[in-house]
Amino acid sequence: MSENITFILGGARSGKSKFAEDLVLRSGLKPIYLATGRAFDDEMVERIESHQNRRGEEWETVEEPLALVDALSHAAIPGRIILVDCLTLWITNLMMAEANVGKEAEGLANYMKDARAPIVLVSNEVGQGVVPENKMAREFVDLSGLVHQRLASVANDVYFVTAGLPNKLK
Amino acid sequence: MSENITFILGGARSGKSKFAEDLVLRSGLKPIYLATGRAFDDEMVERIESHQNRRGEEWETVEEPLALVDALSHAAIPGRIILVDCLTLWITNLMMAEANVGKEAEGLANYMKDARAPIVLVSNEVGQGVVPENKMAREFVDLSGLVHQRLASVANDVYFVTAGLPNKLK
Amino acid sequence: MSENITFILGGARSGKSKFAEDLVLRSGLKPIYLATGRAFDDEMVERIESHQNRRGEEWETVEEPLALVDALSHAAIPGRIILVDCLTLWITNLMMAEANVGKEAEGLANYMKDARAPIVLVSNEVGQGVVPENKMAREFVDLSGLVHQRLASVANDVYFVTAGLPNKLK
Repeated sequence: MSENITFILGGARSGKSKFAEDLVLRSGLKPIYLATGRAFDDEMVERIESHQNRRGEEWETVEEPLALVDALSHAAIPGRIILVDCLTLWITNLMMAEANVGKEAEGLANYMKDARAPIVLVSNEVGQGVVPENKMAREFVDLSGLVHQRLASVANDVYFVTAGLPNKLK
Repeated sequence: MSENITFILGGARSGKSKFAEDLVLRSGLKPIYLATGRAFDDEMVERIESHQNRRGEEWETVEEPLALVDALSHAAIPGRIILVDCLTLWITNLMMAEANVGKEAEGLANYMKDARAPIVLVSNEVGQGVVPENKMAREFVDLSGLVHQRLASVANDVYFVTAGLPNKLK
Repeated sequence: MSENITFILGGARSGKSKFAEDLVLRSGLKPIYLATGRAFDDEMVERIESHQNRRGEEWETVEEPLALVDALSHAAIPGRIILVDCLTLWITNLMMAEANVGKEAEGLANYMKDARAPIVLVSNEVGQGVVPENKMAREFVDLSGLVHQRLASVANDVYFVTAGLPNKLK
Protein backbone atom coordinates (compact mmCIF):
# COMPACT_ATOMS: atom_id res chain seq x y z
CA MET A 1 0.00 0.00 0.00
CA SER A 2 1.37 3.39 -0.92
CA GLU A 3 1.79 6.27 1.53
CA ASN A 4 -0.51 9.29 1.65
CA ILE A 5 0.23 12.01 -0.91
CA THR A 6 -1.21 15.49 -0.31
CA PHE A 7 -1.07 18.25 -2.91
CA ILE A 8 -1.66 21.84 -1.79
CA LEU A 9 -2.25 24.65 -4.28
CA GLY A 10 -2.82 28.33 -3.62
CA GLY A 11 -2.04 31.82 -4.85
CA ALA A 12 0.78 34.07 -3.69
CA ARG A 13 0.63 34.66 0.08
CA SER A 14 -2.48 32.54 0.38
CA GLY A 15 -1.27 30.81 3.53
CA LYS A 16 -0.63 27.54 1.67
CA SER A 17 2.80 26.87 3.27
CA LYS A 18 1.44 27.51 6.77
CA PHE A 19 -1.48 25.17 6.09
CA ALA A 20 0.96 22.51 4.78
CA GLU A 21 3.26 22.86 7.80
CA ASP A 22 0.34 22.46 10.22
CA LEU A 23 -0.81 19.36 8.33
CA VAL A 24 2.70 17.87 8.54
CA LEU A 25 3.07 18.59 12.26
CA ARG A 26 -0.32 17.05 13.10
CA SER A 27 0.94 13.72 11.68
CA GLY A 28 3.21 13.17 14.68
CA LEU A 29 5.96 11.92 12.32
CA LYS A 30 9.46 13.41 12.02
CA PRO A 31 9.06 16.43 9.67
CA ILE A 32 11.52 16.92 6.82
CA TYR A 33 11.45 20.17 4.88
CA LEU A 34 12.54 19.65 1.29
CA ALA A 35 13.31 23.12 -0.03
CA THR A 36 13.51 23.63 -3.79
CA GLY A 37 14.28 27.35 -3.54
CA ARG A 38 17.62 28.86 -4.42
CA ALA A 39 18.42 32.20 -2.85
CA PHE A 40 19.49 34.02 -6.01
CA ASP A 41 18.49 37.50 -4.81
CA ASP A 42 17.84 39.42 -1.59
CA GLU A 43 14.07 39.15 -1.86
CA MET A 44 14.41 35.38 -2.06
CA VAL A 45 16.82 35.27 0.91
CA GLU A 46 14.23 37.15 2.96
CA ARG A 47 11.38 34.82 1.97
CA ILE A 48 13.39 31.73 2.80
CA GLU A 49 14.46 33.15 6.18
CA SER A 50 10.89 34.14 7.03
CA HIS A 51 9.70 30.58 6.28
CA GLN A 52 12.58 29.08 8.30
CA ASN A 53 11.92 31.29 11.31
CA ARG A 54 8.29 30.22 11.37
CA ARG A 55 9.17 26.55 11.40
CA GLY A 56 10.46 25.19 14.71
CA GLU A 57 13.55 23.24 15.74
CA GLU A 58 11.93 19.86 15.12
CA TRP A 59 12.26 20.28 11.35
CA GLU A 60 15.18 18.89 9.39
CA THR A 61 15.88 20.77 6.16
CA VAL A 62 17.10 19.29 2.88
CA GLU A 63 17.77 21.51 -0.15
CA GLU A 64 17.43 20.28 -3.71
CA PRO A 65 16.65 22.61 -6.61
CA LEU A 66 16.47 20.01 -9.41
CA ALA A 67 16.78 16.29 -8.62
CA LEU A 68 13.59 16.08 -6.59
CA VAL A 69 12.95 12.34 -7.01
CA ASP A 70 16.52 11.55 -5.89
CA ALA A 71 16.16 13.77 -2.84
CA LEU A 72 12.79 12.22 -1.99
CA SER A 73 14.17 8.69 -2.39
CA HIS A 74 16.76 9.49 0.26
CA ALA A 75 14.58 11.55 2.58
CA ALA A 76 11.31 9.60 2.51
CA ILE A 77 11.88 6.72 4.91
CA PRO A 78 9.35 5.20 7.35
CA GLY A 79 8.70 7.31 10.45
CA ARG A 80 9.12 10.56 8.56
CA ILE A 81 6.85 12.94 6.65
CA ILE A 82 8.19 15.13 3.85
CA LEU A 83 7.07 18.64 2.94
CA VAL A 84 8.12 19.72 -0.59
CA ASP A 85 7.96 23.53 -0.77
CA CYS A 86 7.48 24.35 -3.49
CA LEU A 87 6.93 22.85 -6.94
CA THR A 88 6.75 26.31 -8.51
CA LEU A 89 10.42 26.97 -7.77
CA TRP A 90 11.33 23.46 -8.88
CA ILE A 91 9.61 24.11 -12.25
CA THR A 92 11.44 27.45 -12.51
CA ASN A 93 14.78 25.78 -11.75
CA LEU A 94 14.11 23.05 -14.32
CA MET A 95 13.23 25.65 -16.97
CA MET A 96 16.43 27.60 -16.22
CA ALA A 97 18.41 24.35 -16.53
CA GLU A 98 16.60 23.65 -19.84
CA ALA A 99 15.34 20.32 -18.53
CA ASN A 100 12.26 18.52 -19.88
CA VAL A 101 9.66 19.59 -17.32
CA GLY A 102 6.96 17.21 -18.58
CA LYS A 103 9.28 14.22 -18.24
CA GLU A 104 10.43 15.33 -14.79
CA ALA A 105 6.81 15.72 -13.66
CA GLU A 106 6.04 12.25 -14.98
CA GLY A 107 8.96 10.86 -12.96
CA LEU A 108 7.76 12.66 -9.84
CA ALA A 109 4.19 11.42 -10.27
CA ASN A 110 5.42 7.84 -10.77
CA TYR A 111 7.65 8.05 -7.70
CA MET A 112 4.62 8.97 -5.58
CA LYS A 113 3.09 5.50 -6.07
CA ASP A 114 5.99 3.84 -4.25
CA ALA A 115 6.84 6.53 -1.70
CA ARG A 116 7.85 5.03 1.65
CA ALA A 117 6.68 8.03 3.71
CA PRO A 118 3.76 10.46 3.47
CA ILE A 119 4.54 13.46 1.26
CA VAL A 120 2.95 16.91 1.19
CA LEU A 121 3.65 18.99 -1.93
CA VAL A 122 3.00 22.73 -2.17
CA SER A 123 2.67 24.74 -5.39
CA ASN A 124 1.54 28.18 -6.58
CA GLU A 125 -1.54 28.67 -8.69
CA VAL A 126 -0.34 31.02 -11.45
CA GLY A 127 -2.83 30.48 -14.28
CA GLN A 128 -5.92 32.43 -13.20
CA GLY A 129 -4.82 35.91 -14.29
CA VAL A 130 -4.38 37.34 -17.78
CA VAL A 131 -2.15 35.38 -20.13
CA PRO A 132 1.28 37.03 -19.79
CA GLU A 133 2.76 38.86 -22.80
CA ASN A 134 6.20 37.40 -22.08
CA LYS A 135 6.65 34.07 -23.93
CA MET A 136 8.71 32.47 -21.17
CA ALA A 137 6.13 33.44 -18.55
CA ARG A 138 3.44 31.90 -20.75
CA GLU A 139 5.46 28.69 -21.03
CA PHE A 140 5.89 28.70 -17.25
CA VAL A 141 2.12 29.05 -16.74
CA ASP A 142 1.48 26.16 -19.15
CA LEU A 143 4.07 23.87 -17.56
CA SER A 144 2.83 24.70 -14.05
CA GLY A 145 -0.70 23.79 -15.07
CA LEU A 146 0.40 20.48 -16.59
CA VAL A 147 2.50 19.58 -13.52
CA HIS A 148 -0.41 20.43 -11.23
CA GLN A 149 -2.84 18.26 -13.22
CA ARG A 150 -0.39 15.34 -13.17
CA LEU A 151 0.29 15.63 -9.43
CA ALA A 152 -3.38 16.11 -8.55
CA SER A 153 -4.20 12.91 -10.46
CA VAL A 154 -1.90 10.79 -8.26
CA ALA A 155 -2.48 12.62 -4.94
CA ASN A 156 -4.85 11.20 -2.35
CA ASP A 157 -5.86 14.65 -1.10
CA VAL A 158 -5.82 17.97 -2.94
CA TYR A 159 -6.50 21.35 -1.30
CA PHE A 160 -6.78 24.85 -2.72
CA VAL A 161 -5.90 27.48 -0.09
CA THR A 162 -7.31 31.02 -0.23
CA ALA A 163 -6.74 33.59 2.53
CA GLY A 164 -5.49 30.79 4.77
CA LEU A 165 -8.65 28.71 4.25
CA PRO A 166 -8.46 25.29 2.57
CA ASN A 167 -11.00 24.10 0.03
CA LYS A 168 -10.76 20.34 -0.47
CA LEU A 169 -10.85 19.50 -4.20
CA LYS A 170 -10.14 15.77 -3.81
CA MET B 1 -38.45 22.75 -21.29
CA SER B 2 -35.01 24.03 -22.19
CA GLU B 3 -31.95 21.85 -22.65
CA ASN B 4 -29.18 21.54 -20.10
CA ILE B 5 -26.55 24.31 -20.19
CA THR B 6 -23.19 23.68 -18.50
CA PHE B 7 -20.60 26.41 -17.98
CA ILE B 8 -17.01 25.40 -17.20
CA LEU B 9 -14.44 27.91 -15.97
CA GLY B 10 -10.79 27.38 -15.12
CA GLY B 11 -7.33 28.88 -15.36
CA ALA B 12 -4.75 28.27 -18.08
CA ARG B 13 -3.93 24.56 -18.42
CA SER B 14 -6.32 23.69 -15.62
CA GLY B 15 -7.72 20.66 -17.45
CA LYS B 16 -11.03 22.43 -18.15
CA SER B 17 -11.26 21.33 -21.80
CA LYS B 18 -10.52 17.72 -20.91
CA PHE B 19 -13.17 17.83 -18.19
CA ALA B 20 -15.66 19.34 -20.66
CA GLU B 21 -14.90 16.73 -23.32
CA ASP B 22 -15.43 13.88 -20.84
CA LEU B 23 -18.73 15.42 -19.75
CA VAL B 24 -19.87 15.66 -23.38
CA LEU B 25 -18.89 12.07 -24.22
CA ARG B 26 -20.68 10.67 -21.15
CA SER B 27 -23.95 12.09 -22.51
CA GLY B 28 -24.09 9.46 -25.26
CA LEU B 29 -25.23 12.12 -27.74
CA LYS B 30 -23.45 13.01 -30.99
CA PRO B 31 -20.64 15.42 -29.96
CA ILE B 32 -20.12 18.64 -31.92
CA TYR B 33 -17.03 20.71 -31.23
CA LEU B 34 -17.68 24.40 -31.83
CA ALA B 35 -14.23 25.99 -32.05
CA THR B 36 -13.95 29.78 -31.65
CA GLY B 37 -10.18 29.84 -32.06
CA ARG B 38 -8.41 31.27 -35.07
CA ALA B 39 -4.91 30.02 -35.72
CA PHE B 40 -3.18 33.39 -36.09
CA ASP B 41 0.26 32.23 -34.95
CA ASP B 42 2.33 29.04 -34.59
CA GLU B 43 1.69 28.73 -30.85
CA MET B 44 -2.05 28.81 -31.54
CA VAL B 45 -1.74 26.24 -34.36
CA GLU B 46 0.02 23.90 -31.92
CA ARG B 47 -2.62 24.34 -29.22
CA ILE B 48 -5.46 23.66 -31.63
CA GLU B 49 -3.73 20.55 -33.01
CA SER B 50 -3.02 19.23 -29.54
CA HIS B 51 -6.71 19.62 -28.63
CA GLN B 52 -7.81 17.98 -31.91
CA ASN B 53 -5.48 15.02 -31.48
CA ARG B 54 -6.88 14.36 -28.02
CA ARG B 55 -10.44 14.27 -29.25
CA GLY B 56 -11.47 11.15 -31.14
CA GLU B 57 -13.05 10.47 -34.52
CA GLU B 58 -16.60 10.69 -33.21
CA TRP B 59 -16.42 14.47 -32.94
CA GLU B 60 -17.66 16.78 -35.68
CA THR B 61 -15.92 20.16 -35.72
CA VAL B 62 -17.51 23.51 -36.59
CA GLU B 63 -15.44 26.72 -36.58
CA GLU B 64 -16.93 30.13 -35.85
CA PRO B 65 -14.88 32.98 -34.42
CA LEU B 66 -17.65 35.61 -34.12
CA ALA B 67 -21.28 34.66 -34.91
CA LEU B 68 -21.63 32.17 -32.08
CA VAL B 69 -25.44 32.30 -31.78
CA ASP B 70 -25.84 31.69 -35.53
CA ALA B 71 -23.44 28.75 -35.39
CA LEU B 72 -25.25 27.31 -32.36
CA SER B 73 -28.65 27.73 -34.03
CA HIS B 74 -27.46 25.54 -36.88
CA ALA B 75 -25.46 23.02 -34.85
CA ALA B 76 -27.69 22.50 -31.82
CA ILE B 77 -30.35 20.07 -33.01
CA PRO B 78 -31.93 17.19 -31.06
CA GLY B 79 -29.68 14.14 -30.63
CA ARG B 80 -26.55 16.25 -30.46
CA ILE B 81 -24.52 17.91 -27.69
CA ILE B 82 -22.39 20.99 -28.39
CA LEU B 83 -19.08 21.91 -26.79
CA VAL B 84 -18.13 25.59 -27.21
CA ASP B 85 -14.38 25.93 -26.64
CA CYS B 86 -13.79 28.62 -25.69
CA LEU B 87 -15.56 31.85 -24.80
CA THR B 88 -12.23 33.55 -24.04
CA LEU B 89 -11.19 33.41 -27.70
CA TRP B 90 -14.67 34.47 -28.77
CA ILE B 91 -14.40 37.56 -26.53
CA THR B 92 -10.92 38.27 -27.95
CA ASN B 93 -12.23 37.94 -31.52
CA LEU B 94 -15.17 40.24 -30.76
CA MET B 95 -12.86 42.86 -29.24
CA MET B 96 -10.58 42.70 -32.29
CA ALA B 97 -13.62 43.14 -34.54
CA GLU B 98 -14.71 46.09 -32.33
CA ALA B 99 -18.06 44.43 -31.65
CA ASN B 100 -20.21 45.22 -28.60
CA VAL B 101 -19.22 42.34 -26.31
CA GLY B 102 -21.91 43.05 -23.71
CA LYS B 103 -24.66 42.93 -26.35
CA GLU B 104 -23.22 39.75 -27.88
CA ALA B 105 -23.09 38.10 -24.44
CA GLU B 106 -26.69 39.11 -23.83
CA GLY B 107 -27.67 37.49 -27.14
CA LEU B 108 -25.78 34.32 -26.24
CA ALA B 109 -27.39 34.14 -22.79
CA ASN B 110 -30.85 34.63 -24.29
CA TYR B 111 -30.25 31.94 -26.89
CA MET B 112 -29.47 29.44 -24.13
CA LYS B 113 -33.07 29.53 -22.90
CA ASP B 114 -34.35 28.08 -26.19
CA ALA B 115 -31.43 25.82 -27.12
CA ARG B 116 -32.61 22.58 -28.75
CA ALA B 117 -29.60 20.54 -27.62
CA PRO B 118 -27.48 20.46 -24.46
CA ILE B 119 -24.57 22.90 -24.59
CA VAL B 120 -21.29 22.90 -22.67
CA LEU B 121 -19.36 26.20 -22.70
CA VAL B 122 -15.72 26.54 -21.64
CA SER B 123 -13.97 29.76 -20.65
CA ASN B 124 -10.73 30.94 -19.02
CA GLU B 125 -10.67 32.60 -15.63
CA VAL B 126 -8.40 35.62 -16.17
CA GLY B 127 -9.37 38.00 -13.35
CA GLN B 128 -7.64 36.56 -10.28
CA GLY B 129 -4.16 37.98 -10.85
CA VAL B 130 -2.94 41.58 -10.63
CA VAL B 131 -4.84 44.14 -12.68
CA PRO B 132 -2.84 44.40 -15.94
CA GLU B 133 -1.08 47.69 -16.77
CA ASN B 134 -2.17 47.42 -20.40
CA LYS B 135 -5.54 49.15 -20.92
CA MET B 136 -6.79 46.66 -23.51
CA ALA B 137 -5.87 43.72 -21.26
CA ARG B 138 -7.80 45.42 -18.44
CA GLU B 139 -10.82 45.83 -20.69
CA PHE B 140 -10.51 42.17 -21.68
CA VAL B 141 -10.49 41.09 -18.02
CA ASP B 142 -13.57 43.23 -17.33
CA LEU B 143 -15.50 41.93 -20.34
CA SER B 144 -14.56 38.34 -19.55
CA GLY B 145 -15.86 38.76 -16.01
CA LEU B 146 -19.13 40.25 -17.23
CA VAL B 147 -19.64 37.50 -19.84
CA HIS B 148 -18.91 34.83 -17.20
CA GLN B 149 -21.42 36.32 -14.76
CA ARG B 150 -24.09 36.48 -17.47
CA LEU B 151 -23.52 32.91 -18.66
CA ALA B 152 -23.32 31.52 -15.12
CA SER B 153 -26.69 33.11 -14.35
CA VAL B 154 -28.45 31.18 -17.15
CA ALA B 155 -26.46 27.93 -16.88
CA ASN B 156 -27.91 24.92 -15.06
CA ASP B 157 -24.50 23.72 -13.90
CA VAL B 158 -21.32 25.71 -13.33
CA TYR B 159 -17.92 24.16 -12.57
CA PHE B 160 -14.56 25.70 -11.73
CA VAL B 161 -11.69 23.37 -12.70
CA THR B 162 -8.32 23.48 -10.93
CA ALA B 163 -5.51 20.98 -11.62
CA GLY B 164 -8.03 18.82 -13.46
CA LEU B 165 -10.43 18.73 -10.49
CA PRO B 166 -13.92 20.23 -10.80
CA ASN B 167 -15.50 22.32 -8.04
CA LYS B 168 -19.26 22.65 -8.59
CA LEU B 169 -20.34 26.26 -8.06
CA LYS B 170 -23.95 25.80 -9.19
CA MET C 1 -20.82 39.07 21.90
CA SER C 2 -19.30 40.58 18.80
CA GLU C 3 -21.20 41.42 15.63
CA ASN C 4 -21.08 39.31 12.50
CA ILE C 5 -18.10 39.92 10.21
CA THR C 6 -18.31 38.74 6.59
CA PHE C 7 -15.32 38.76 4.25
CA ILE C 8 -15.93 38.48 0.50
CA LEU C 9 -13.11 37.78 -1.95
CA GLY C 10 -13.26 37.46 -5.72
CA GLY C 11 -11.43 38.29 -8.93
CA ALA C 12 -11.99 41.34 -11.13
CA ARG C 13 -15.62 41.61 -12.28
CA SER C 14 -16.52 38.43 -10.43
CA GLY C 15 -19.78 39.86 -9.09
CA LYS C 16 -18.38 40.14 -5.55
CA SER C 17 -19.74 43.68 -4.90
CA LYS C 18 -23.19 42.71 -6.12
CA PHE C 19 -23.16 39.63 -3.90
CA ALA C 20 -22.04 41.78 -0.94
CA GLU C 21 -24.76 44.38 -1.58
CA ASP C 22 -27.47 41.71 -1.71
CA LEU C 23 -26.18 40.21 1.55
CA VAL C 24 -26.29 43.64 3.20
CA LEU C 25 -29.80 44.41 1.98
CA ARG C 26 -31.17 41.07 3.16
CA SER C 27 -30.15 41.99 6.74
CA GLY C 28 -32.96 44.54 6.99
CA LEU C 29 -30.59 46.96 8.74
CA LYS C 30 -29.75 50.49 7.55
CA PRO C 31 -27.02 50.02 4.90
CA ILE C 32 -23.91 52.19 4.99
CA TYR C 33 -21.53 52.09 2.04
CA LEU C 34 -17.96 52.78 3.16
CA ALA C 35 -16.07 53.60 -0.03
CA THR C 36 -12.27 53.44 0.03
CA GLY C 37 -11.87 54.42 -3.62
CA ARG C 38 -10.45 57.72 -4.76
CA ALA C 39 -11.41 58.82 -8.23
CA PHE C 40 -7.94 59.63 -9.52
CA ASP C 41 -8.68 58.95 -13.20
CA ASP C 42 -11.63 58.74 -15.61
CA GLU C 43 -11.74 54.94 -15.55
CA MET C 44 -12.10 55.08 -11.77
CA VAL C 45 -14.80 57.75 -11.93
CA GLU C 46 -16.78 55.48 -14.26
CA ARG C 47 -16.42 52.44 -12.01
CA ILE C 48 -17.53 54.38 -8.93
CA GLU C 49 -20.54 55.82 -10.75
CA SER C 50 -21.54 52.43 -12.11
CA HIS C 51 -21.46 51.00 -8.56
CA GLN C 52 -23.41 53.99 -7.18
CA ASN C 53 -26.10 53.75 -9.84
CA ARG C 54 -26.67 50.09 -9.03
CA ARG C 55 -27.16 50.80 -5.34
CA GLY C 56 -30.48 52.32 -4.39
CA GLU C 57 -31.54 55.40 -2.42
CA GLU C 58 -31.57 53.58 0.91
CA TRP C 59 -27.79 53.55 1.07
CA GLU C 60 -25.78 56.18 2.92
CA THR C 61 -22.26 56.65 1.55
CA VAL C 62 -19.15 57.45 3.59
CA GLU C 63 -15.77 57.92 1.88
CA GLU C 64 -12.48 57.16 3.60
CA PRO C 65 -9.35 56.19 1.66
CA LEU C 66 -6.98 55.60 4.61
CA ALA C 67 -8.32 55.80 8.20
CA LEU C 68 -10.64 52.83 7.89
CA VAL C 69 -10.85 51.95 11.60
CA ASP C 70 -11.74 55.58 12.47
CA ALA C 71 -14.43 55.64 9.80
CA LEU C 72 -15.82 52.30 10.99
CA SER C 73 -15.82 53.46 14.63
CA HIS C 74 -18.08 56.35 13.62
CA ALA C 75 -20.26 54.51 11.12
CA ALA C 76 -20.78 51.16 12.82
CA ILE C 77 -23.53 51.81 15.36
CA PRO C 78 -26.39 49.49 16.35
CA GLY C 79 -29.19 49.24 13.77
CA ARG C 80 -26.78 49.64 10.86
CA ILE C 81 -24.77 47.31 8.64
CA ILE C 82 -21.57 48.48 6.96
CA LEU C 83 -20.24 47.46 3.56
CA VAL C 84 -16.52 48.21 3.07
CA ASP C 85 -15.78 48.22 -0.68
CA CYS C 86 -13.01 47.51 -1.13
CA LEU C 87 -9.90 46.53 0.83
CA THR C 88 -7.84 46.38 -2.38
CA LEU C 89 -8.13 50.13 -2.89
CA TRP C 90 -7.48 50.73 0.80
CA ILE C 91 -4.23 48.71 0.54
CA THR C 92 -3.30 50.68 -2.60
CA ASN C 93 -3.99 53.98 -0.84
CA LEU C 94 -1.92 52.91 2.18
CA MET C 95 0.99 51.91 -0.05
CA MET C 96 0.85 55.25 -1.87
CA ALA C 97 0.85 57.03 1.50
CA GLU C 98 3.83 54.84 2.55
CA ALA C 99 1.91 53.57 5.58
CA ASN C 100 2.69 50.28 7.34
CA VAL C 101 0.07 48.02 5.73
CA GLY C 102 0.71 45.09 8.08
CA LYS C 103 0.15 47.27 11.14
CA GLU C 104 -2.98 48.82 9.63
CA ALA C 105 -4.37 45.37 8.83
CA GLU C 106 -3.66 44.28 12.39
CA GLY C 107 -5.58 47.30 13.66
CA LEU C 108 -8.50 46.55 11.35
CA ALA C 109 -8.60 42.87 12.41
CA ASN C 110 -8.53 43.87 16.09
CA TYR C 111 -11.32 46.40 15.59
CA MET C 112 -13.53 43.65 14.16
CA LYS C 113 -13.71 41.91 17.55
CA ASP C 114 -15.49 44.88 19.12
CA ALA C 115 -17.51 46.12 16.17
CA ARG C 116 -20.94 47.39 17.24
CA ALA C 117 -22.62 46.60 13.90
CA PRO C 118 -22.29 43.79 11.34
CA ILE C 119 -19.61 44.50 8.74
CA VAL C 120 -19.17 43.10 5.25
CA LEU C 121 -15.72 43.59 3.69
CA VAL C 122 -14.98 43.11 -0.01
CA SER C 123 -11.55 42.56 -1.54
CA ASN C 124 -9.97 41.49 -4.85
CA GLU C 125 -8.09 38.24 -5.24
CA VAL C 126 -4.90 39.28 -7.07
CA GLY C 127 -2.45 36.47 -6.29
CA GLN C 128 -3.51 33.63 -8.57
CA GLY C 129 -1.80 34.79 -11.77
CA VAL C 130 1.89 34.95 -12.64
CA VAL C 131 4.13 36.81 -10.22
CA PRO C 132 4.36 40.34 -11.67
CA GLU C 133 7.73 41.59 -12.94
CA ASN C 134 7.14 45.01 -11.38
CA LYS C 135 8.49 45.08 -7.79
CA MET C 136 5.73 47.34 -6.46
CA ALA C 137 3.05 45.10 -7.98
CA ARG C 138 4.74 42.13 -6.32
CA GLU C 139 4.71 43.92 -2.98
CA PHE C 140 1.03 44.74 -3.52
CA VAL C 141 0.22 41.07 -4.18
CA ASP C 142 2.09 40.05 -1.04
CA LEU C 143 0.42 42.66 1.16
CA SER C 144 -3.03 41.83 -0.24
CA GLY C 145 -2.47 38.17 0.57
CA LEU C 146 -1.38 38.94 4.12
CA VAL C 147 -4.33 41.30 4.71
CA HIS C 148 -6.74 38.67 3.34
CA GLN C 149 -5.34 35.95 5.61
CA ARG C 150 -5.60 38.25 8.65
CA LEU C 151 -9.17 39.31 7.87
CA ALA C 152 -10.30 35.79 7.04
CA SER C 153 -8.98 34.60 10.40
CA VAL C 154 -11.26 37.00 12.34
CA ALA C 155 -14.29 36.85 10.01
CA ASN C 156 -17.28 34.70 10.86
CA ASP C 157 -18.08 34.00 7.22
CA VAL C 158 -15.76 34.02 4.20
CA TYR C 159 -16.94 33.69 0.59
CA PHE C 160 -15.04 33.46 -2.67
CA VAL C 161 -17.15 34.73 -5.59
CA THR C 162 -16.61 33.50 -9.17
CA ALA C 163 -18.88 34.47 -12.07
CA GLY C 164 -21.39 35.80 -9.53
CA LEU C 165 -21.49 32.50 -7.63
CA PRO C 166 -20.34 32.34 -3.99
CA ASN C 167 -18.24 29.50 -2.61
CA LYS C 168 -18.29 29.50 1.20
CA LEU C 169 -14.76 28.99 2.55
CA LYS C 170 -15.65 29.54 6.23
